[in-house]
Order: sequence, then structure tokens, then C-alpha cells
Amino acid sequence: MSKIAGVLGGLGPEATVDFLAKLVAGTDAANDQDHVRLLIDHNPTVPNRHDAIAGRAPSVGPQLAEMAAGLERAGADFLVMVCNTAHAYTDEIRTAVSIPFISIVDVTVEAAAAAGHRQVGVMAAEGCLRAALYQQALTAAGCEPVLWSDDELESFMALVYRIKAGERDEDIRSGVSRLATSLVFGGAEALIAGCTEIPLMLAPESAPAPLFSSTDLLVQRTIELAKAD
Amino acid sequence: MSKIAGVLGGLGPEATVDFLAKLVAGTDAANDQDHVRLLIDHNPTVPNRHDAIAGRAPSVGPQLAEMAAGLERAGADFLVMVCNTAHAYTDEIRTAVSIPFISIVDVTVEAAAAAGHRQVGVMAAEGCLRAALYQQALTAAGCEPVLWSDDELESFMALVYRIKAGERDEDIRSGVSRLATSLVFGGAEALIAGCTEIPLMLAPESAPAPLFSSTDLLVQRTIELAKAD
Repeated sequence: MSKIAGVLGGLGPEATVDFLAKLVAGTDAANDQDHVRLLIDHNPTVPNRHDAIAGRAPSVGPQLAEMAAGLERAGADFLVMVCNTAHAYTDEIRTAVSIPFISIVDVTVEAAAAAGHRQVGVMAAEGCLRAALYQQALTAAGCEPVLWSDDELESFMALVYRIKAGERDEDIRSGVSRLATSLVFGGAEALIAGCTEIPLMLAPESAPAPLFSSTDLLVQRTIELAKAD
Repeated sequence: MSKIAGVLGGLGPEATVDFLAKLVAGTDAANDQDHVRLLIDHNPTVPNRHDAIAGRAPSVGPQLAEMAAGLERAGADFLVMVCNTAHAYTDEIRTAVSIPFISIVDVTVEAAAAAGHRQVGVMAAEGCLRAALYQQALTAAGCEPVLWSDDELESFMALVYRIKAGERDEDIRSGVSRLATSLVFGGAEALIAGCTEIPLMLAPESAPAPLFSSTDLLVQRTIELAKAD
């Protein structure tokens, strides 16, 4: 009997499509019934997380906690969330439920550290970096985070908002790629795609260093946990 | 304030990915928050509907009714289901909830009839045809359904199971296309893609007659209803 994964999604919407598509494609299945059950709260109406974390808007913790509690009530056995930045509210989510909440940040850092990388470039968005989610997790794992300059982060945020608005052009692709390369020049021997919009524009095979996609790693962990006895 | 759409999904999984991808791409949105909220019960573990409808296995009505009631309890304002065949259990679903359940069959037939088509080819799977879902709805709308022979339906089912198993080759594509053409030879002036696996292998622009995709039409209706005041 497989477990039901509860998914806090829609943050943003295309990242959730990407997560679901990869999860379905990545499941070893000969027919419908071999696939895993998910309860997805696809809720793009949660306000901007970067503004909240920067103190420019109220916390979105209560909304995320409510989504998490709703998924538990609906029958989820464990929870995942398809948005790195929103993991700034991990404590509020965990407090709201009695089922495990699997952190995309922990899953991603575990994979990068297990591969033996020490200097790890963090491609992440403003709120995620401001909350130091990857910096703390990498340091705890014995790794050293390599970060963008403020100007580079600003460029990245402009690209993220264009991706979220549905733009998909070569200008964005080369911009994301250039920002990845900059971290490698800064000493990164591997990169973390710590924002679920990144895989929409940068494939691991096009990255200038081994790329640990938080989306892909969360997909794998979700399948493993759902299929575990 | 937009409404929350409850989605009975996972039947099959890739059809639900297709639905969600088209819904997100089809929403007029400049940022995350312009998108609509969905509660998705992605449940591929519901047993084979064709076997149930043919009497070879127990009814799956109770399971679908339970999924529907769960989505209502979780906060959905209306329901849709991304599987044509499972609409054989429409009455059981409607009995289980007090919110509207929008039928993919009705939405699709409405569009074909509104376009003025009278002889309409029905590309649908065994259980859907056995339950006469499209035949009844087309007749009620003043249209005449054009159907496959038993041999053609058998070929279609073999293709559907290959699509559900993740196969995507030219052989399947040409098989689906040949079955579409056969309905046109049989007098159909338009075609209904009345199985959510069809759009995965046959694009409207490749079809031998105007193709009314049940997935696309349900996506449009879902967005309209979710954004309605």
C-alpha cells in the first residue's frame, strides 16, 4: 500500500506542472495503478514570498500552515512543497501538522554533500537567500556556499519574474546560464538550482558544473517515500 | 475572489499533467497570483474503469464519490474530472456532493454542437462507449454520433494502454491518426477527442477534421468558472 503525498503547490504554477510531469515520468509504472497518489493544493494565490520575508508585506506562514493542515485532514501521509523560498516558513508548517514535512532544501543539500562537493554555488531567489535557507543547510553539512553579488541577485529576480509571467526566450536562458557560470568563476564546484523556476530554463546538461536540481531531487524523494512500505 | 476548482485526477496521470499544463498556460496571468487555485486529488490507484463498466470488476463509483466528497470538504467550490470514461459514474459523484460537478462530456458536446456540426465522430475508449456517454449527449444535442467498428475500438484500446504505459512513438501516433481518419470516412464532419490520452498523441492541427479536445474544453471551462464572480 503506497502512501499519499500532500503537495503544497502553485508557487509558482509552472514549477508545479514541472514537478508533476517529472514525478509521473519518473515513476516506474506499467499502468495507471502503479503510479502514486498525490493530494495537491495548487494555490498560486499565496502572496509574494520575497516581499513577506523582506518585511515589505505580512507573513505568508499562516496561509502555508493552513494549506498543510488541509492536506493532512484530506488524508496526506507526508508533505512536500514545490517552492524553495516558501521553506522560510518550514517551522510554521511543521507546527501545524502531525505528519512529516520533507524539506526541499534538506533533500537538495544532502545530495550535493553526498556527492562530495564542498564549494557549492547557490542559485536561489531573494527571499530564500535572505532567510539563509541554503547557506545554513550547506554549512551544517560541512559545505561552503558560494553566492551571487547583490547586482547578480537583482538580475536573477528580474529573470524569475519573467519566467513566472510565462516568458521563455533565449535572453532568459542565456541570463540564467551566465549567472550559473558566475558562481563557478566564484569557486563553486557544483551548483544548486534552489529555485523551482530554474529547471524551466536551465537543464543539468547545459549547466557549467554539476547541477543539483531541487525539483528533481524532491520528485525522487517523493516517489521513494510514497512507494515505501 | 476566484473560486477553487476541485479536480478528480490521476486517471491517468499523464492526462492530468496535460490538463494542468494547459490550464496554467491558458490562464491570462502576469504573475503567480493571477492564476487560479486548484485542489487536485491525483489518484491513479482507482482501478481500471473499463473493466468495471463491462462488469469484469466491481464499480469504482464509491471511490470516485469519496474523492469528490473529500475535495468538497477540503474547500472546492466546483468539481471537474480529467477522465471521460469515469464520467459513467457522474450520478454517484453528484449524489455525494452539494457543489456543481462539471461534466467533460457535456462541455465537449456543447462545443461541437455550437459549432454547427451534426455528424460527429467519437474517439473514445471502451467503457466510455459502452456507457454511451457521448452517444447520448450528442443525440440530445441533435447530433448523430459516428462510431468505430469493434475491431477499430480494440485497436484504439491497445494504443491507449501503450500511451498510459508511457510509450510515445510514431507507430502510436499514426495509429491514432488512422482511427481518426476512419471516422471521417464514416461520415464524421468533426471529431471529439473523448479520451484524455488522445491529445497526448494527436494535435488538433494534425487531425483530419475539426477536433474538439475534451481536455482543452474542460481546461477552458475550468478557468472561466474559477475566474467568474
